[in-house]
Amino acid sequence: MTNSPLLNSVWDFVFVPQQGALDITTEFGRLKVEPNEICVVQQGMRFSVDAPNRPFFPKPSGLPDPPSPGYEDREVSEYRVISKYQGHLFEAVQGHSPFDVVAWHGNYVPYKYNLKNFMGSCPAFPPTPRYVFLGVEIGDPTHNRDPSIFTVLTCPSAKPGVAIADFVIFPPRWAVQEHTFRPPYYHRNCMSEFMGLICGNYEAKEKGFQPGGASLHSMMTPHGPDAQCFESASTEPLKPVRVADGTQSFMFETCLGLGLTDWGEDTCCKVDASYFKCWQGLKKNFDPNWKPASKE
Amino acid sequence: MTNSPLLNSVWDFVFVPQQGALDITTEFGRLKVEPNEICVVQQGMRFSVDAPNRPFFPKPSGLPDPPSPGYEDREVSEYRVISKYQGHLFEAVQGHSPFDVVAWHGNYVPYKYNLKNFMGSCPAFPPTPRYVFLGVEIGDPTHNRDPSIFTVLTCPSAKPGVAIADFVIFPPRWAVQEHTFRPPYYHRNCMSEFMGLICGNYEAKEKGFQPGGASLHSMMTPHGPDAQCFESASTEPLKPVRVADGTQSFMFETCLGLGLTDWGEDTCCKVDASYFKCWQGLKKNFDPNWKPASKE
Amino acid sequence: MTNSPLLNSVWDFVFVPQQGALDITTEFGRLKVEPNEICVVQQGMRFSVDAPNRPFFPKPSGLPDPPSPGYEDREVSEYRVISKYQGHLFEAVQGHSPFDVVAWHGNYVPYKYNLKNFMGSCPAFPPTPRYVFLGVEIGDPTHNRDPSIFTVLTCPSAKPGVAIADFVIFPPRWAVQEHTFRPPYYHRNCMSEFMGLICGNYEAKEKGFQPGGASLHSMMTPHGPDAQCFESASTEPLKPVRVADGTQSFMFETCLGLGLTDWGEDTCCKVDASYFKCWQGLKKNFDPNWKPASKE
Amino acid sequence: MTNSPLLNSVWDFVFVPQQGALDITTEFGRLKVEPNEICVVQQGMRFSVDAPNRPFFPKPSGLPDPPSPGYEDREVSEYRVISKYQGHLFEAVQGHSPFDVVAWHGNYVPYKYNLKNFMGSCPAFPPTPRYVFLGVEIGDPTHNRDPSIFTVLTCPSAKPGVAIADFVIFPPRWAVQEHTFRPPYYHRNCMSEFMGLICGNYEAKEKGFQPGGASLHSMMTPHGPDAQCFESASTEPLKPVRVADGTQSFMFETCLGLGLTDWGEDTCCKVDASYFKCWQGLKKNFDPNWKPASKE
Amino acid sequence: MTNSPLLNSVWDFVFVPQQGALDITTEFGRLKVEPNEICVVQQGMRFSVDAPNRPFFPKPSGLPDPPSPGYEDREVSEYRVISKYQGHLFEAVQGHSPFDVVAWHGNYVPYKYNLKNFMGSCPAFPPTPRYVFLGVEIGDPTHNRDPSIFTVLTCPSAKPGVAIADFVIFPPRWAVQEHTFRPPYYHRNCMSEFMGLICGNYEAKEKGFQPGGASLHSMMTPHGPDAQCFESASTEPLKPVRVADGTQSFMFETCLGLGLTDWGEDTCCKVDASYFKCWQGLKKNFDPNWKPASKE
Amino acid sequence: MTNSPLLNSVWDFVFVPQQGALDITTEFGRLKVEPNEICVVQQGMRFSVDAPNRPFFPKPSGLPDPPSPGYEDREVSEYRVISKYQGHLFEAVQGHSPFDVVAWHGNYVPYKYNLKNFMGSCPAFPPTPRYVFLGVEIGDPTHNRDPSIFTVLTCPSAKPGVAIADFVIFPPRWAVQEHTFRPPYYHRNCMSEFMGLICGNYEAKEKGFQPGGASLHSMMTPHGPDAQCFESASTEPLKPVRVADGTQSFMFETCLGLGLTDWGEDTCCKVDASYFKCWQGLKKNFDPNWKPASKE
Repeated sequence: MTNSPLLNSVWDFVFVPQQGALDITTEFGRLKVEPNEICVVQQGMRFSVDAPNRPFFPKPSGLPDPPSPGYEDREVSEYRVISKYQGHLFEAVQGHSPFDVVAWHGNYVPYKYNLKNFMGSCPAFPPTPRYVFLGVEIGDPTHNRDPSIFTVLTCPSAKPGVAIADFVIFPPRWAVQEHTFRPPYYHRNCMSEFMGLICGNYEAKEKGFQPGGASLHSMMTPHGPDAQCFESASTEPLKPVRVADGTQSFMFETCLGLGLTDWGEDTCCKVDASYFKCWQGLKKNFDPNWKPASKE
Repeated sequence: MTNSPLLNSVWDFVFVPQQGALDITTEFGRLKVEPNEICVVQQGMRFSVDAPNRPFFPKPSGLPDPPSPGYEDREVSEYRVISKYQGHLFEAVQGHSPFDVVAWHGNYVPYKYNLKNFMGSCPAFPPTPRYVFLGVEIGDPTHNRDPSIFTVLTCPSAKPGVAIADFVIFPPRWAVQEHTFRPPYYHRNCMSEFMGLICGNYEAKEKGFQPGGASLHSMMTPHGPDAQCFESASTEPLKPVRVADGTQSFMFETCLGLGLTDWGEDTCCKVDASYFKCWQGLKKNFDPNWKPASKE
Repeated sequence: MTNSPLLNSVWDFVFVPQQGALDITTEFGRLKVEPNEICVVQQGMRFSVDAPNRPFFPKPSGLPDPPSPGYEDREVSEYRVISKYQGHLFEAVQGHSPFDVVAWHGNYVPYKYNLKNFMGSCPAFPPTPRYVFLGVEIGDPTHNRDPSIFTVLTCPSAKPGVAIADFVIFPPRWAVQEHTFRPPYYHRNCMSEFMGLICGNYEAKEKGFQPGGASLHSMMTPHGPDAQCFESASTEPLKPVRVADGTQSFMFETCLGLGLTDWGEDTCCKVDASYFKCWQGLKKNFDPNWKPASKE
Repeated sequence: MTNSPLLNSVWDFVFVPQQGALDITTEFGRLKVEPNEICVVQQGMRFSVDAPNRPFFPKPSGLPDPPSPGYEDREVSEYRVISKYQGHLFEAVQGHSPFDVVAWHGNYVPYKYNLKNFMGSCPAFPPTPRYVFLGVEIGDPTHNRDPSIFTVLTCPSAKPGVAIADFVIFPPRWAVQEHTFRPPYYHRNCMSEFMGLICGNYEAKEKGFQPGGASLHSMMTPHGPDAQCFESASTEPLKPVRVADGTQSFMFETCLGLGLTDWGEDTCCKVDASYFKCWQGLKKNFDPNWKPASKE
Repeated sequence: MTNSPLLNSVWDFVFVPQQGALDITTEFGRLKVEPNEICVVQQGMRFSVDAPNRPFFPKPSGLPDPPSPGYEDREVSEYRVISKYQGHLFEAVQGHSPFDVVAWHGNYVPYKYNLKNFMGSCPAFPPTPRYVFLGVEIGDPTHNRDPSIFTVLTCPSAKPGVAIADFVIFPPRWAVQEHTFRPPYYHRNCMSEFMGLICGNYEAKEKGFQPGGASLHSMMTPHGPDAQCFESASTEPLKPVRVADGTQSFMFETCLGLGLTDWGEDTCCKVDASYFKCWQGLKKNFDPNWKPASKE
Repeated sequence: MTNSPLLNSVWDFVFVPQQGALDITTEFGRLKVEPNEICVVQQGMRFSVDAPNRPFFPKPSGLPDPPSPGYEDREVSEYRVISKYQGHLFEAVQGHSPFDVVAWHGNYVPYKYNLKNFMGSCPAFPPTPRYVFLGVEIGDPTHNRDPSIFTVLTCPSAKPGVAIADFVIFPPRWAVQEHTFRPPYYHRNCMSEFMGLICGNYEAKEKGFQPGGASLHSMMTPHGPDAQCFESASTEPLKPVRVADGTQSFMFETCLGLGLTDWGEDTCCKVDASYFKCWQGLKKNFDPNWKPASKE
């Protein structure tokens, strides 16, 4: 355990562990957060993150779980509290552990949540239409729903129907759409999409998207399934199919543009420079002389 | 064609033909409304309803359809316009047909809508929780949604989340819920439910509910599937199943109590006095010593 | 001065003197209200109305005027206060004048307002479209505004855009509309219209509508200018014209139906049974073979 | 225990026991409600009320308390469920106890609340000004607050700031107002006030208002402290004083008029016909020649 | 036709051609936009702007017009799409024309609108008072309206009544105000005003404001008619006058401050450095001894 | 009097004189603002601030006071108006005093307000919970109110319940809380707190906070009473006590971070570098073996 906790004075943190569990100590107690769980630590709370090496006795409830009780009554010669404030880091030195809160009440408390308990349903405010649909026949929209029914957390902006950020997942489910193209369609979004994979294979990019990986599609950048996914989804019979079993992908969708740090763009050496090639196999299917077959 | 149209000065009419088509003449033109279509004639519009005996040239669009153009330039010695105003009927006599409107613009216009084009989705405002769930194990709620996603028309009240009336349908769809009881659960509703069947067999009452029939469950009257439906839905394997193919049931759900006319309660001689018996076959399944089998 | 004031426990009163002034004594002081002025006495205030026979020293401000100060310190053997409560009249006897309030503060106070100071402009909330326009060519709508810009007082309902009652006037103004029919068009209103004349001649009914008179058009009852007005407005050149100089007509427009008392319908012997005849001179102008002349 | 529970299909019940405890059995379990506690049983719940003769094991929390768990698995030959619906009583006969619910989840549940835990604070929406202050000098309003800070429960109407009903209490507290008249002032209210006493002596009517008693002041009926209270509160020094210790009075304040049943007005023989006399000792203190002493 | 379209990833474009028409090609088809028309191209749409050299077959409707249908099925070796994103320009190279959309549905579509069809009326939300009126006698405000009735487009901010930008025009109309100064008054605005002229002469600056020109009055910068306009408007008789015939001036009014590019301030060499002189001829008219003539 | 007034084109100014009075000349007249008064000068108004050396004839009303009438008809060779616009200062030269406004109407007017007239009550919108309470036993919260009841002015943001800035005071009052720690508790605030003292001694920091002084606690910086205040408030008997007599402290509380100018941080040489020591005397009181005494 380090003697150097962090706090964010202005915003909340959302943790989405993709590989390996986190042992998060807070002023309110401890949370062990494993992949497929998320954790929210709110503005102003002192916390530290370690690899889990201590026993936990979790009692998962199906609802968001508060921390396990726990406090330290520990004198430390130089405890350094790091504060992120207005984009800068500040340091304060104190002589005792900040994790010395014995009890608390109220609902201003960090929590974790197991995504397998999530049931996609209507968020508190219905979304405004946000997508520009372009490029392929959409077919009968009877069963295509806005992905917003998969919104787990939302941070609303002052503009109704627009989120500073939505946290969305694509959990295991049945696909039963008929007369349509079932994967996520080709689109441009007026929101930025930061997407990641926690486990399994993402249906729309079967090879190029691994657990621990993530993609960023900034506002109005067109994207959609790769060539392989397009081919199979265009020809398979449309009977009920179980999708995403054993997988969990997630998305932060925000009305803001997301900046890249130098670390993320260069230092980490993890950017996939050939990502765009996943669409190059898409063939031109347009035939100006095509006519629909007669139907009922 | 009669020379006696009707208008409702205070409210709109919604027509839901269950058996046989309607030929509706309005000041805005004519609408032929067939079963599985609905028609809205708004406050103050003169109209008359006949059995269809004239040729129509419909051009259905998938969207709500306005009337086919048409007007009458016809002198009539005693044209009697009946007005429903504040619960009473008034009659005015005039010397010409009221259906003499040659053209109009705007969106204050009667329309019809084919229910087969409806895609269940989020209404404009998300519903507040409205149900009291009682009596059976609900199980994993992962796929049970509020029926409000089937709302076709809503007439909102001044209280957010509460409708003066919702018009709801239960169209053909896939049932994919798992770990649960799939038919409409046993419940009491704080809204009144007036339900009817247009075609096919209703899944929760396979025998006792015929096309052209209707049921009324007033506020807080408990109801749910009949004994036969309960038995089969409790034992069938939960694989994807196509439900309601070939059927169309509908519901008016209202925060008001619905009164019964003498005609409806007595004169028509159509009340099913043994309706309550559909639940009498339900067996008591409670065993205070029962314990759940261990599960993962 | 009588010893029998009135109060309305549930609603406010709006007085619109059409012929002769009113001397209104209230707990807050006295108001002399002359034709072309209106007076509001709010819920629960004791007041009495007399013919004015005492000197006033008004200081009109252009804004709504509060009462002139004044109180009575007067013992009365049997002062009878009449209260209108839930549609009934109640009487309480007390031994002193209720007009004994020496001073007050706040804005819960009766007031009067001179309609000549009114400038038609946007009400606090813009109206929803409320009219069904039928029956005559409307032409270029460039200058036709919703009459709501003439709303002086509004009592909003819980439904945005719908008023329990609007008090509207039609003050002297310039008519500059071009390519159109300038008088109030033929229409049905989803609101009830109770209209009256304070002075002058109303443009749309030049003979049949006298100062002190009033008309009631209930919801969805079609109405519009009389035959004479239609003829002249259809043929006059459309140069700027000063209208309504020397007149003041008003309207209470309400989303409710208005009931008629026996006194109003029969006892008063003032109902104009031939009112409907003002429209009988309207000629049928429809020619199915008519074609518009070509225009730029 | 009777075999005849009640339910209200349209509204909720609020119980305020003034004398003696209630033993309330509901489908959700049992609640023992003692004086100074209130109990809410919502729309559509079956319940019965008895004198408490069974042991309870309450675990009061300081928050609203749900029922103690409990159910009956009991066959009854003729169980009669009484339903109050649209102002009428209906009866249904069934063969088993309705109190057979073994478990439930959610927050649609009856609850009780101990009024001693209430801390007066801001309600969810700030009240609009509702009072007409008349009749006595109010003095320095620095510490006079709107009684709405004592609102325990509110049932909002569709009109912001207006309640269908507020449930308000006047708990023990310090009175520290200076330069003012401390008891409830003389006023007319645009709301109806139904007030009762649970224990102790009400400060504004020290004799005439006993535990178990209640008063009704309909809209715009003036009222205020009795003569004795006025005298003492006008002359006592204004040092901090503990008020209402050992008492609990409550008020239902509603924007609706309250009707009286025959039972309440006559049959019960409990109406205090001399109630109005409590104000008859109030002396006239007005002196037109009075002048305020000069102050800083 | 260039092979280099533009898109704006974050905001919409509004085009207001002042001199010469624009030929705008978009993914949704083509729009020919002539002076006195405006064109909106929304966020994320690819488009290019040319001088019109191709035949169009416009069918103007009086309503906003969508593009004429059209698409290109064209391979291009290096098609360069320029994207404006977060204030920077980005370039992407592709091998085909982006204008290859064959069909679309929905209302996310560029459109043009002919300003001659605009009728000034109430915007969706009434404006809050925004002006500080200073410096000259305003006179009888009976006919002076807030210019907001001329708002054609508004982009609301999160603050009710405040627009990120309003697009306002001053179309031909009758001026009928009496007892007042008719031109735009001297004022400071809490909004920034960017104003331009499309055709004709602007009434408040008859010489110094030519078609194709524009002015910027930043927040709280006082401005108003030039000296010549002040003189004539102060002395002319106030009979109905037709104003702005043959002209069209427009204004973008925004709650934000507008920055100037180097090009706009220097490079273009178009800034009128003597603009301020238009007010220097205004004479001081203040006479402390002046008294109004008595009036009725 | 200088010939160089200032205006702020984008925001309003709030003046809170802590030591010595201000003589503020505006286009609307003059205001003498003394300690314990505040003054608001809105966006775009020209004003200058001097030490008061001219006689005033104030007529304080208890309400916000507008300026005393006054104007200058004064030619000046070089009058320099300084404008603060978008964070920069601009200068315009003119030949006459801008304080030449003879009369005005409306409510866009600077005003002053005497804080002694303030009565703490509910602000227009109730605050959302904003505090994180940490570190000491809070006890019975019966009388602890959110400090928001002391809000004098609020500048709301677009997010309901969050203010761009609240101006709050802590006026003389009775402290009657029981079973609790009465001074401001130890807390972190998600808002920034800029606090100052106008006169007297602040209760929570009796020595280190002088009239004319101010403190800044940025978001989420923990703070609370000094050691001395903690000791006495923890041991004194909790009888009614008059607090803050003869003092006036104020706070600007804002959801934004406040930047420090170089002048404020260094040049002024007024920063109290030992401020943090006021908490160093706080002793550790935690005893893991402590148990509460039994109570009723």
